[in-house]
Amino acid sequence: MVKVTLIGAGSAVFARQILTDVLAIGGLDGGNFALVDIDADRLKLAHDVFEKLVELTGKNWTVESSTERNDVLAGTDFLVNSIEVAGLENVRHDYEIPLRYGVDQCIGDTIGPGGIFKALRTGPTWLEILRDAERECPDAVVMNYTNPMSLLTLAATRATSMDVVGLCHSIQGTSEQLAGYLEVPLEELRFRAAGINHNSWFVELERDGEDLYPELRRRVPELYGQDPVRFETMINLGAFPTESSGHFSEYLPYFRKRPDLIQRYTRDGYLGESGYYANNWPTWRAENDEEIRRMLSGEEELPLERSPEYAADVIEAITLNREKVIYGNVGNTGLIENLPDGCVEVVCLVDKNGIQPTHFGTLPEQLAALNRAHMAVHELVVQALLEHDRQSALYALMLDPLTAAVCSLEEIRHMFDEMWAAQHPFLTSFG
Amino acid sequence: MVKVTLIGAGSAVFARQILTDVLAIGGLDGGNFALVDIDADRLKLAHDVFEKLVELTGKNWTVESSTERNDVLAGTDFLVNSIEVAGLENVRHDYEIPLRYGVDQCIGDTIGPGGIFKALRTGPTWLEILRDAERECPDAVVMNYTNPMSLLTLAATRATSMDVVGLCHSIQGTSEQLAGYLEVPLEELRFRAAGINHNSWFVELERDGEDLYPELRRRVPELYGQDPVRFETMINLGAFPTESSGHFSEYLPYFRKRPDLIQRYTRDGYLGESGYYANNWPTWRAENDEEIRRMLSGEEELPLERSPEYAADVIEAITLNREKVIYGNVGNTGLIENLPDGCVEVVCLVDKNGIQPTHFGTLPEQLAALNRAHMAVHELVVQALLEHDRQSALYALMLDPLTAAVCSLEEIRHMFDEMWAAQHPFLTSFG
Amino acid sequence: MVKVTLIGAGSAVFARQILTDVLAIGGLDGGNFALVDIDADRLKLAHDVFEKLVELTGKNWTVESSTERNDVLAGTDFLVNSIEVAGLENVRHDYEIPLRYGVDQCIGDTIGPGGIFKALRTGPTWLEILRDAERECPDAVVMNYTNPMSLLTLAATRATSMDVVGLCHSIQGTSEQLAGYLEVPLEELRFRAAGINHNSWFVELERDGEDLYPELRRRVPELYGQDPVRFETMINLGAFPTESSGHFSEYLPYFRKRPDLIQRYTRDGYLGESGYYANNWPTWRAENDEEIRRMLSGEEELPLERSPEYAADVIEAITLNREKVIYGNVGNTGLIENLPDGCVEVVCLVDKNGIQPTHFGTLPEQLAALNRAHMAVHELVVQALLEHDRQSALYALMLDPLTAAVCSLEEIRHMFDEMWAAQHPFLTSFG
Amino acid sequence: MVKVTLIGAGSAVFARQILTDVLAIGGLDGGNFALVDIDADRLKLAHDVFEKLVELTGKNWTVESSTERNDVLAGTDFLVNSIEVAGLENVRHDYEIPLRYGVDQCIGDTIGPGGIFKALRTGPTWLEILRDAERECPDAVVMNYTNPMSLLTLAATRATSMDVVGLCHSIQGTSEQLAGYLEVPLEELRFRAAGINHNSWFVELERDGEDLYPELRRRVPELYGQDPVRFETMINLGAFPTESSGHFSEYLPYFRKRPDLIQRYTRDGYLGESGYYANNWPTWRAENDEEIRRMLSGEEELPLERSPEYAADVIEAITLNREKVIYGNVGNTGLIENLPDGCVEVVCLVDKNGIQPTHFGTLPEQLAALNRAHMAVHELVVQALLEHDRQSALYALMLDPLTAAVCSLEEIRHMFDEMWAAQHPFLTSFG
Repeated sequence: MVKVTLIGAGSAVFARQILTDVLAIGGLDGGNFALVDIDADRLKLAHDVFEKLVELTGKNWTVESSTERNDVLAGTDFLVNSIEVAGLENVRHDYEIPLRYGVDQCIGDTIGPGGIFKALRTGPTWLEILRDAERECPDAVVMNYTNPMSLLTLAATRATSMDVVGLCHSIQGTSEQLAGYLEVPLEELRFRAAGINHNSWFVELERDGEDLYPELRRRVPELYGQDPVRFETMINLGAFPTESSGHFSEYLPYFRKRPDLIQRYTRDGYLGESGYYANNWPTWRAENDEEIRRMLSGEEELPLERSPEYAADVIEAITLNREKVIYGNVGNTGLIENLPDGCVEVVCLVDKNGIQPTHFGTLPEQLAALNRAHMAVHELVVQALLEHDRQSALYALMLDPLTAAVCSLEEIRHMFDEMWAAQHPFLTSFG
Repeated sequence: MVKVTLIGAGSAVFARQILTDVLAIGGLDGGNFALVDIDADRLKLAHDVFEKLVELTGKNWTVESSTERNDVLAGTDFLVNSIEVAGLENVRHDYEIPLRYGVDQCIGDTIGPGGIFKALRTGPTWLEILRDAERECPDAVVMNYTNPMSLLTLAATRATSMDVVGLCHSIQGTSEQLAGYLEVPLEELRFRAAGINHNSWFVELERDGEDLYPELRRRVPELYGQDPVRFETMINLGAFPTESSGHFSEYLPYFRKRPDLIQRYTRDGYLGESGYYANNWPTWRAENDEEIRRMLSGEEELPLERSPEYAADVIEAITLNREKVIYGNVGNTGLIENLPDGCVEVVCLVDKNGIQPTHFGTLPEQLAALNRAHMAVHELVVQALLEHDRQSALYALMLDPLTAAVCSLEEIRHMFDEMWAAQHPFLTSFG
Repeated sequence: MVKVTLIGAGSAVFARQILTDVLAIGGLDGGNFALVDIDADRLKLAHDVFEKLVELTGKNWTVESSTERNDVLAGTDFLVNSIEVAGLENVRHDYEIPLRYGVDQCIGDTIGPGGIFKALRTGPTWLEILRDAERECPDAVVMNYTNPMSLLTLAATRATSMDVVGLCHSIQGTSEQLAGYLEVPLEELRFRAAGINHNSWFVELERDGEDLYPELRRRVPELYGQDPVRFETMINLGAFPTESSGHFSEYLPYFRKRPDLIQRYTRDGYLGESGYYANNWPTWRAENDEEIRRMLSGEEELPLERSPEYAADVIEAITLNREKVIYGNVGNTGLIENLPDGCVEVVCLVDKNGIQPTHFGTLPEQLAALNRAHMAVHELVVQALLEHDRQSALYALMLDPLTAAVCSLEEIRHMFDEMWAAQHPFLTSFG
Repeated sequence: MVKVTLIGAGSAVFARQILTDVLAIGGLDGGNFALVDIDADRLKLAHDVFEKLVELTGKNWTVESSTERNDVLAGTDFLVNSIEVAGLENVRHDYEIPLRYGVDQCIGDTIGPGGIFKALRTGPTWLEILRDAERECPDAVVMNYTNPMSLLTLAATRATSMDVVGLCHSIQGTSEQLAGYLEVPLEELRFRAAGINHNSWFVELERDGEDLYPELRRRVPELYGQDPVRFETMINLGAFPTESSGHFSEYLPYFRKRPDLIQRYTRDGYLGESGYYANNWPTWRAENDEEIRRMLSGEEELPLERSPEYAADVIEAITLNREKVIYGNVGNTGLIENLPDGCVEVVCLVDKNGIQPTHFGTLPEQLAALNRAHMAVHELVVQALLEHDRQSALYALMLDPLTAAVCSLEEIRHMFDEMWAAQHPFLTSFG
């Protein structure tokens, strides 16, 4: 009997999708779900949806839930992590303090000042979960969805013996967008992509052996406004990246450091709006809970389609020994030869032998260099987490490409001090 | 239109199988086959079989053949190499000269004195083929079946820009044998195997999460006689290897260095018979040609079943973008972390993006050490081939584990000199 | 008889110093000097100084000179490179064009827009010299002083079989400054420094086992104004760097990107003055020639003291087998474990066995990351040089930390185009 | 005040030499010696010699001694290890049991059955010493002389944070022998040597730029009998190794596996006599103690010459910041590129910054392969020591080149079982 445990299951919309996907696996007719969340109310919501979904599909799955993970970890085969630590209390600090120093973030949950502090808040809990898992279910496959995903996955590979992969759908998503831009059926698109999460690069893009980049460049005049930062990147740096224009604009030093550049390269919402995440995520979160309530009450339909998220693919591949191919975020054991040891995003074969990353080779140097800049930040934050060392986190912020393009070292130190002071109650593990 | 070129197609039994497999690919209804062999008579035989097979399947494939590879290389998508260079003239030298020095080989075509000289005879032609391919069909995927396969594939990765994989069915074959020994359905066997060709190791062997090695050890008393060298290896070194007892007995220093050990650990035929290959291969070769003639004349049926050979899988996966998983022999870019740069056998994902080796991790040190011993021999023979340097080939023979267990340095030098003198007409590239 | 060849000997002040140092080697009483420069007048000047110096010391050295290096390369044991290619014609372009895009350089001859274009102009000639040396004096030890030194040395390690080391006195110089700041005798200072040239880091600084950094930090209030950028770096990033405040301010994104920061962190001259090198170097060059003329005429004394430059140390160590320790710039074969393959500055042992780099270990990650940013630029410029590829040079400029902190991608492209157009006559090897 | 602690100081002859060397360091006029040995009588002997020596030199050194290392470790700057664990009780088992299986050892204290069991007996104590040192004197430089030196040094680099180097004079010794064979003054010999201890290789041997190997080969007829195994190795494998013919004959599979080969390639005593060490070492040990007693009583003179052992050089270099060059055995951080991670012997620069290994490059593949064979044995014994795993030690013995050339796997297992049974009282840490 396979057992799937979701930590942070109170994110009921996400949990619902993972469950729906798992229920849709043909040939896997039953098992155990365990749901964990420290928020008993949201956990109840998730539990109810799960029971309803299981009932709808008529499959033989049991559901249990607990606010104490150690009640349910034992026996877990697959551990899905989607925890969120103190976001409501800090998301505005993450945005507003840097803004006063000129660092204008759109999303800011994976890198930059916001991403670094989110990692500092979330990392200690994440590492405790993994330590519990080492004891209770040492052979479980751990799938991490919590952001900063790449950084937290790296911390896991450094600090625990658990088998951890970081998952994100940005490569799939971008390939769909590219298919759309090019008006080519997705299944006819051949591409090779690799890098680090949100900064992977489509280094090849073909149909029937024909390079599609010339065609994509020809279409820039008509498409530019839909994805300005990514097209600007493609034109100048030679490859299309995997994160949305707005979020991606925060990763590089070129787009958000001056008001005129923000004006020129960004648009509303996910195309780069200032504070888009900080201003909206609390609302989205509440709306998600509402939506789940409507699904439970029957006001809204519970969708049963399988999504392209990889978690169910991994469960299917390993449990039923069906070969699946995913993009996974894993330790760089020479997979991308010109990136250092760290967490990289590459094609992985999954079957009963688990998640097996494939060798990619060498990225074009200019793209590798942009990846390395963030990998250094990750490395320093992981150092901060593992050694409970505030100073390493400050160094990390000094190296963030956008922050370094905007501020002096002294300004960065002051910004860091101010953020630390504001978030201090949630940074207790740093003593 | 896909084009598949077979170099050494005069090995008609092998060529027939590859063709049969390709014709059996569902959804691939046509293409071009090009056959090359320097022996016009055997090439004619292969050509006739091909035409007959295509006719039988009713598929839309054309067949052309030539004794000059440069007539047909252009446009090749898949190049399958199964050449054989001067074997009839030298197979007895390969066996008899070493035997006079106490090195008693059973097969001797991939390692040891026989394997090293086969490499020295075959390598120069193989490298010329690759140089022609670089010019005529630089994007072709090259699949090498010619022995010493691992060594010749390594030479290719060092000397050419062609994308080359070495293929062998020994891991599949051994997994079938293990399933039989254990009386477990093959599809229920979960295993992880890696190493170098013929010396890969089943480091895990399970069913439903249960380690099957204890059961295999329990069955040793009844099974030992069927596979003595492999069971002896498993008992003492901790893992089951991928080559037959007879051939495998030549790879290690433990089994064939003293008459009493040969007596004890070997049996007839493929279980270790002295000179089994040298004494029989010329006959087998003639019988194969005869069998093909009978198939053509209708005396014998032309089988149409797809075999487990990987060549057609690779063609299917890349051409039709169907994910396939093979064990391929590829450059060790950190895939097996405790083996050096060289040619290793690991799980590869194949799809439209080509052959993508997966990261394996670390072999148990005692098994890695046995692999490294042969990898040093490969390295030195490749050095001999690329630098036309006889001395490196002599060093290689000094390092062959069985030879080193039997002879002194001086004896090895004399053996080498004698073999060189006997085979001199076929070693002209060494000047 | 040892033969020392100076290419670019027309830099007579530098050549004079090297010669003086060599003449001061005790126990090396004679040999041959060969001087090469394409400027016959300046070469004559150098030749005359050499003859005078040899005469003064009474040692048994001969001097020959030629505008054609191939006349004198044969037999060379030590090749010292100090060429300068088209500097007079381009130094103002190197400064003024970037300035119009907001990139305000102080020195700009090793990195940034100025350094990159200097490399593009100088690299092709440098590689030709090395190819000539491969033919004429393949066993010579090559010492490169020409800037961008680190980048050109990297190009050499990638493109030639010559044994090349890059030399600079910045680590010695900085250690003297630190001794002065700390009022500690230089010989009592113990330090470990490593990184890349001009960006090496004093990771340890002690006397008698006592860490001197706390004392240096205590003295910051009084010392800050003498070295503002380096003290700011030490305070915030944790280590003192090896290049002067002014030049170092160009390497990082923090100090010169906004007028207020330039105002705050820089001072006149070598402390960061805008255009200091472009505005003064042509004059310095002329003054140097004048000074040499005065020395020849006897108006000024010819100094005979040995300097701390390493060239004579290398010659002494190898020729007389006296162990010397230098900081050399060499290929990173795992010497600094968290820097990639590239050109690094580490302690080297020199004796009759040549220049033997020592293993350093791991740099603090924040310092390594700053080094890696420039190593990526070097890598791309080397790619541009070896593949005659303009696009790689443009990518390099996009990655320059200061340029990336000031400009958008489009602005960088325009700046590059403008510089290319201005310097086109000197970039002929890019076709 | 520098403090030098000798563990195993009861080896009074060795301890006396180290002390004599340290007392001979010009400019180091005092300090503290601490002597440790579990044998109070032999410790007393060493203590008395030390006091007498200090008195003779008139230097200002104190001497303390204890049978409990933890009484004296605190404050240690240099820790010299020369312990010997249960040798008297086991040296005959180490020799006689393998001999019954046909493995005929001459020395057998660093590799082979004898060396492996010596490591199993000695390793646990050695690791305890290092753990005590981590606590009491974490910054001490540890110099290990105890055999198997390379293996125990590797265990230290894997298991402790102490800075450990393994020391041996075999490269110096061999260079003197070569100078003698060639009748060239030692100071005129230029050579490069590297590998693993006792298996390093003179890959270059020159005077004034002239390769001396041709001359050495010319002299083989007259010299062969003085060093048969080393000359045989040089003739056939291309380089002269660093260990005496007798001991070196045990490292390779070519010389001692058959009675006729032993007859042919070995001579009396250190030239390869069977059981030379086992039969003589107990006597030598007693004679050494006697000699020390005579020196104390005045019957024999106490020599005051400094020896070529490196320990005093290391102390001098670090304490007085005088650059010294030694061959040290250190972790292979890419120093020898074609050897794996392990313990290698390379040139090290020593000064106040400690022991800094230099990068060597690549060994000829045939020599690297012979080194790797023993490095695998070391790796497995270290695994046995660190994981208290008997099985890994058995695997190690299976891979010993001479043992593997003589025995079957089963025979090796029986030999191992027999040795284990005999030495069981001294292998208690394996449970």
